Amino acid sequence: MSDLSGIIIPRGFRFAAAKAGLKASGRPDFAVIVADTPASAAAAFTSNRIVAAPLIVDMENLHAADGRVRVVAINAGNANCAAGEPGLRAARATCAAAAHAFGCCPEEVFPSSTGIIGVPLPAEKLIDVLPVLAASLSAELGRFLEAAQAILTTDTVEKIAFARVEIENPSAQSDAVGEVRLAAFAKGSGMIHPQLVPHATMLVYILTDASIEPAHLDAYLRSAIDISFNRISVDGDTSTNDTVLLMASGASGISIGPHDSAFAAALTQVSKSLAYQIVADGEGITHIVELRIEGAATDADALRVAKAIAHSPLVKTAWAGSDPNWGRLAAAIGYSGAQIDPARIDIRFGALPVCLDGGRDPSFDEAAAHAYISQREFSISIDLHQGAGSCVFWTTDLTTQYVHINADYST
Amino acid sequence: MSDLSGIIIPRGFRFAAAKAGLKASGRPDFAVIVADTPASAAAAFTSNRIVAAPLIVDMENLHAADGRVRVVAINAGNANCAAGEPGLRAARATCAAAAHAFGCCPEEVFPSSTGIIGVPLPAEKLIDVLPVLAASLSAELGRFLEAAQAILTTDTVEKIAFARVEIENPSAQSDAVGEVRLAAFAKGSGMIHPQLVPHATMLVYILTDASIEPAHLDAYLRSAIDISFNRISVDGDTSTNDTVLLMASGASGISIGPHDSAFAAALTQVSKSLAYQIVADGEGITHIVELRIEGAATDADALRVAKAIAHSPLVKTAWAGSDPNWGRLAAAIGYSGAQIDPARIDIRFGALPVCLDGGRDPSFDEAAAHAYISQREFSISIDLHQGAGSCVFWTTDLTTQYVHINADYST
Repeated sequence: MSDLSGIIIPRGFRFAAAKAGLKASGRPDFAVIVADTPASAAAAFTSNRIVAAPLIVDMENLHAADGRVRVVAINAGNANCAAGEPGLRAARATCAAAAHAFGCCPEEVFPSSTGIIGVPLPAEKLIDVLPVLAASLSAELGRFLEAAQAILTTDTVEKIAFARVEIENPSAQSDAVGEVRLAAFAKGSGMIHPQLVPHATMLVYILTDASIEPAHLDAYLRSAIDISFNRISVDGDTSTNDTVLLMASGASGISIGPHDSAFAAALTQVSKSLAYQIVADGEGITHIVELRIEGAATDADALRVAKAIAHSPLVKTAWAGSDPNWGRLAAAIGYSGAQIDPARIDIRFGALPVCLDGGRDPSFDEAAAHAYISQREFSISIDLHQGAGSCVFWTTDLTTQYVHINADYST
Repeated sequence: MSDLSGIIIPRGFRFAAAKAGLKASGRPDFAVIVADTPASAAAAFTSNRIVAAPLIVDMENLHAADGRVRVVAINAGNANCAAGEPGLRAARATCAAAAHAFGCCPEEVFPSSTGIIGVPLPAEKLIDVLPVLAASLSAELGRFLEAAQAILTTDTVEKIAFARVEIENPSAQSDAVGEVRLAAFAKGSGMIHPQLVPHATMLVYILTDASIEPAHLDAYLRSAIDISFNRISVDGDTSTNDTVLLMASGASGISIGPHDSAFAAALTQVSKSLAYQIVADGEGITHIVELRIEGAATDADALRVAKAIAHSPLVKTAWAGSDPNWGRLAAAIGYSGAQIDPARIDIRFGALPVCLDGGRDPSFDEAAAHAYISQREFSISIDLHQGAGSCVFWTTDLTTQYVHINADYST
């Protein structure tokens, strides 16, 4: 966990967490974020064509409430996906009950679910604990952390990020000058290969006390997502429940227009931090790998190469063994679909030359390469010499522990 | 292994295998198939854009020799891929030496390599044992089996298939009527997701003693590949070395024209048998899974769904644990890119109803589903209710043993 000293939560939000009885472990599994007044909101959801019931309700509610959210209600232990009409009814019943408990319209409630797919969500379990949540709302950091922990599934640690931005040129709508805060929490460990589209099962909640119109908030969110959550993969499985929600309470009194670079930078920093934390807590992983693809014909081609590598079981298992078998990287580059010249591919492990002009670099030192990728974190650079396209992508190895986590069957 | 009683090798071919010293185990690693006279040939190679040196030489030689092949020279232990100019020189040197040893032109030699990528092939080790191979050529079944064993890498068993066809309507080019034989061997256990294009690292050699023109042979091969080798996946990694070679010696004296359904059926049967054997010997597998996709908008969409499922680590690890977690199947269907209606997806495990109209089937019996997929072989049927597109696809689970096989690093 990050150093929490000096962290202050954005103004205008309160938090609570409770045990609804959805997690087999009996741990807290239901969290709420409540904005003091309707917050400006922008959201991104999965591109999976099977979309969980809460996401459908989220899209409807965001539209009906003109991009304003009062209550975010997040349960772990059940994804409420592939559950048909009963799933939609369960999500809507939760919204109605939360609206009653927190004093807002049902359309101002943003439900989220994560956990097993295909099992009907027992909404009554969530509804029963809403009074407990309402009674324990707090803006304290400790309660924020409880919420961040309640939404975890196979995660081993909570993912949180914070930033402060000194706004030098506040927009004309406001006279206030000063500090805007960001705070965010997320979950995600398996089924991680988010492909978010502009309305994005990783769950991410980013909060700020800046005042920002929903349309501008949406633009800020898209830009940040493209170089953070859409640049990570643990297992290549794009979830049915991926959601990123950005909420702006306005409680700082500082208005931010559409082109504030300092805010954009802080949002990107928070997003990248969470994306990295999700990869770093990937199911069963022992290595975090940064892929730096350069010289691709286009950025899209660079991303094709990164994804082919990040999804190759042979590459990922070699990493698990710290095996500098770069031939498997070459094979994945070859089937990625990107434009390449096999005789013009260079590969480096950190600063170590590995492959030059498509063949083994004469100065390739296998022992040094093995030692380098024996580290928990390492970087692989690939230059395709085709153009100016590039990307940076974070992924993981594939270990026996990943298989255990996902194969151990319990009824 | 199949029952070998009564098997007779196609006429016109001889075989040999020897130890060239490429396998760390010291086992035989170099095999040849020698046609008594130049055989008509058709080949399919990988669609990976990084293509191993022997495949480049194969394409050149097939073109130069007008689709005729005398000698197939296959080494295991080194893929001769990503080895630059030295790799090409090694492949060509092997051809020249094999031509000398077996009395043909270098262009009539078809080299194949499988093993580690990125390490220069020591051609001299192959060349040194050519005289041993030449001295031990035999048309006997035993020698055929030795060749089939020498080309294995992480395979645990050789893959062989045989067929006999009674040709009732031989083409006008010949008066002979009677039996045409097919015999084939293959290797492949990891890096198995062949995507063959008409001129495929699985290695497959199919031999027949029919007389067939190269152009017709090519058409027969394409049709057979499309519903066999291109319908399997172990790990989703498309190799740089995949090759399927079909050779017709003509030694039966029976000519076959372009539209012989009996021959096509026998070739398809042999190809499907080998494809199944490759999946069944997939690295570390404990389950063989038949995917039957029906009701897709198009056949291509059916294949998209099958591949998304076959490549999902979450689905494959659930299978390893015999976990009937069909929600993971739903997620993979959703991100496959195929046209779907989430509310019209039906899933069955064998004959057991699992998912109906996109939600859990009311009669879903989890214990029965668990028992069914605890079997070594099982079938999953998915109906998308979108159209008439369909496919049958074979794949495997993903086990801790797979990770061990591919992560255990040895210098």
